[in-house]
Amino acid sequence: MINTATLDQLKAALGPKGWSDDPAELDPHVTDWRGRYRGETPILLKPATTAEVAEAVRICAANGIAITPQGGNTGLVGGATPKGEVLISLKRMTAIRETDTANDSLTVEAGCILETVQETAREAGRLFPLSLGSQGSATIGGLISTNAGGVHVLRYGMMRDLVLGIEAVLPDGQIWNGLRGLRKDNSGYDLKQLFIGAEGTLGIVTAATLKLFPRPAETCVAWAAVASPDDAVTLLGDLKAATGGALSALELVPRNALDLVLKHIPGTRDPLDSRHPWHVLVEIGAARNGEGRAMMEAGLGHALESGLVKDAVIAENEAQALALWQLREPIAEAEKAHGKAAKHDLSIPVSRMPAFIKEATALIESMIPDANVIAFGHVGDGNVHFNIASQQPGTGEDFLASCRPATEAVFELVTRYNGSIAAEHGVGVLKSADLAARRPLDVALMRSVKAALDPENIMNPRVLIAD
Amino acid sequence: MINTATLDQLKAALGPKGWSDDPAELDPHVTDWRGRYRGETPILLKPATTAEVAEAVRICAANGIAITPQGGNTGLVGGATPKGEVLISLKRMTAIRETDTANDSLTVEAGCILETVQETAREAGRLFPLSLGSQGSATIGGLISTNAGGVHVLRYGMMRDLVLGIEAVLPDGQIWNGLRGLRKDNSGYDLKQLFIGAEGTLGIVTAATLKLFPRPAETCVAWAAVASPDDAVTLLGDLKAATGGALSALELVPRNALDLVLKHIPGTRDPLDSRHPWHVLVEIGAARNGEGRAMMEAGLGHALESGLVKDAVIAENEAQALALWQLREPIAEAEKAHGKAAKHDLSIPVSRMPAFIKEATALIESMIPDANVIAFGHVGDGNVHFNIASQQPGTGEDFLASCRPATEAVFELVTRYNGSIAAEHGVGVLKSADLAARRPLDVALMRSVKAALDPENIMNPRVLIAD
Repeated sequence: MINTATLDQLKAALGPKGWSDDPAELDPHVTDWRGRYRGETPILLKPATTAEVAEAVRICAANGIAITPQGGNTGLVGGATPKGEVLISLKRMTAIRETDTANDSLTVEAGCILETVQETAREAGRLFPLSLGSQGSATIGGLISTNAGGVHVLRYGMMRDLVLGIEAVLPDGQIWNGLRGLRKDNSGYDLKQLFIGAEGTLGIVTAATLKLFPRPAETCVAWAAVASPDDAVTLLGDLKAATGGALSALELVPRNALDLVLKHIPGTRDPLDSRHPWHVLVEIGAARNGEGRAMMEAGLGHALESGLVKDAVIAENEAQALALWQLREPIAEAEKAHGKAAKHDLSIPVSRMPAFIKEATALIESMIPDANVIAFGHVGDGNVHFNIASQQPGTGEDFLASCRPATEAVFELVTRYNGSIAAEHGVGVLKSADLAARRPLDVALMRSVKAALDPENIMNPRVLIAD
Repeated sequence: MINTATLDQLKAALGPKGWSDDPAELDPHVTDWRGRYRGETPILLKPATTAEVAEAVRICAANGIAITPQGGNTGLVGGATPKGEVLISLKRMTAIRETDTANDSLTVEAGCILETVQETAREAGRLFPLSLGSQGSATIGGLISTNAGGVHVLRYGMMRDLVLGIEAVLPDGQIWNGLRGLRKDNSGYDLKQLFIGAEGTLGIVTAATLKLFPRPAETCVAWAAVASPDDAVTLLGDLKAATGGALSALELVPRNALDLVLKHIPGTRDPLDSRHPWHVLVEIGAARNGEGRAMMEAGLGHALESGLVKDAVIAENEAQALALWQLREPIAEAEKAHGKAAKHDLSIPVSRMPAFIKEATALIESMIPDANVIAFGHVGDGNVHFNIASQQPGTGEDFLASCRPATEAVFELVTRYNGSIAAEHGVGVLKSADLAARRPLDVALMRSVKAALDPENIMNPRVLIAD
């Protein structure tokens, strides 16, 4: 519990604009956007500078007060919902500190919204490739702390691969300056890696230097029908080889997911004439105009001839490209409109993904006779969103609880496939116990690193590492 | 000091093929290949399996005996030369455990030679892109432990970027199995990052799952003259934009380095008719035949028209391409034939590299009037090999000592440019004191991580983190 004197110290340190205890202002910060987690905090801190973050952390550390850091609050695993902790939101720290075009880098504060970063890169004639559904509200600090993924990982990697340097406030309030825009820096342990994907348990990311890329001159999007995930993986290999790294997305959409989208998302239509069991959305970004389309036509043409692809359509313009993406992006929204779902964000070696989907689907159907399994995702990354949808009566939480044996069976299968039960959404409070059960030595190592950097355990203490 | 009973335990655990104390066999293992470091060890251990590595480490840990792990012993910073520690060489662990073409991954043991890995990838129709001078003897374990760089970092990244998973023996002898071939795995801290670039201070890497890439169908190499490093950086930006990620190398070679190569390396000749102050070697890898040359011709043609490039020659075949690389690769060898050199492996943001080279050269020339500064390197990575060559009498070590003030001035300048004094060669024992002096908080954080994972400080204790 925090006492009044400590609260007063925090208020004085951050000034009148730097804090709030107004329930109306706090409310959206203590609930996650899916509405699964609801918490409380004695105070919301809104520092405007790194020095203010450091001062707030110092005061909390000196008084043994735990902290929950928060970015855009778009997470899915409860990692940013306080349960009594002091809540530190970075939303006022939105400065673009430096655009260095010749270095292909951009230094921004943690509260910058992803869309703003994308736009800033665009204005500099560059691309910041991270792209995901919540990009209008997700912040750089949160995206780093959760090592965000998205639809362009295939070509550009995860957030971890897009960060050159980090500035962070350590659990004792010291500021660590690792803000270097270097491609090579073998100066011992790569400390920034500790903060990436740590879900705020080792410190608070306050700024970052990000990698920029050349903007593709032309982006070509296509939608193709395939007979199976096996064929999707074969197509992936063929297109990777044929495009020389220009393939920027290959997404798998099963028939039942497409049907939900067509039913629930206004303005969508099936671009192919006949029904197919599986589809892929393919995106190619080319350095020269015309080349993207040429590569797509050659790649899909060859696949149509060989029978690997059953039918395909290539977007003629940006509107059509968006329409094709609109068949993939809103699958989660369509699932929500349809009913309840027990969702699993899994990754599997790409080569074993088709076998996994088949085996996991059969397993769930044997456990839950009327199960509606929806398996979609990022083929190139081996990332399967493996969901069990339901329209039965009852609450979502009750449904999740009833699916728990199925979830455990799926996790067991993932472990057998040498995969991960937390692919891109992270661990948070949702999966910390499952992680500890399945990777005990990993969690023991994490715990020792955590104890080394945060011996008082004040940084996001309930998250990631289960007690 | 190790006692006879412990030695007997180690010998019994590894069997007759698993150890040696024959001075003739030990000799090449206790000296580094440049001959700058010479050490000693009571015993050379040569485990054949991960279980044997674990058993050896357990015995050492139980007896408080320090360990130096060693790969191909090609390092430049004294990180693998024992000074009384037990030496563990991974050279018998050379198995290719799994080639997973559809997952674009390869799992190999730590003692695998880089060339073998490149060849295994080639046989699978794939590319393992790491490429550096010592690839005929450097091992995967050593390359991971030093986060090796080389000439293709521009396109494919450092070793850190090429590792999907790691198996390592921890300082207490436990085996940590992080051998997963996953592109996405947000299961908390990315523990493998701790072992990459840690120079053996946190454990012994015993195997790794590496990323493979499509092989370019065509590789085109060119040699171009530019007026200055500024123009080289401009050319880099233009070629990056024009080639859509196909640019795989852009190396900077100054006149004086080229002259040394032409003088000392048999069979080399200047491919251009007139003398120029700076040159770049450009390599493009294209997915389709003819496209690499077309991109090169377009890119260099445009640069010739604008005056950015003064003259250029494009290799017509593989032999010519090798001949151009032969003007860049043996610069270190040519320097050695020329005389002594004080070498600095630095990195600077690419945008500031030209200004740095200018300022650092002037600084050294003001401090050492007859200094012969040779600044070459990887433009795309901001990696400058900044060397001071000399033909004066005296030993190399004496020359290095006399250059120490110059080295400190260069390091100071690097710090002002927000660069790194250890770009790709690492820290070892060579730079640990300099690192501690320049990044004290970084080293304090490393020390706390080291203490957490290796509380008895038995893993490579003199390396990286200075006392």
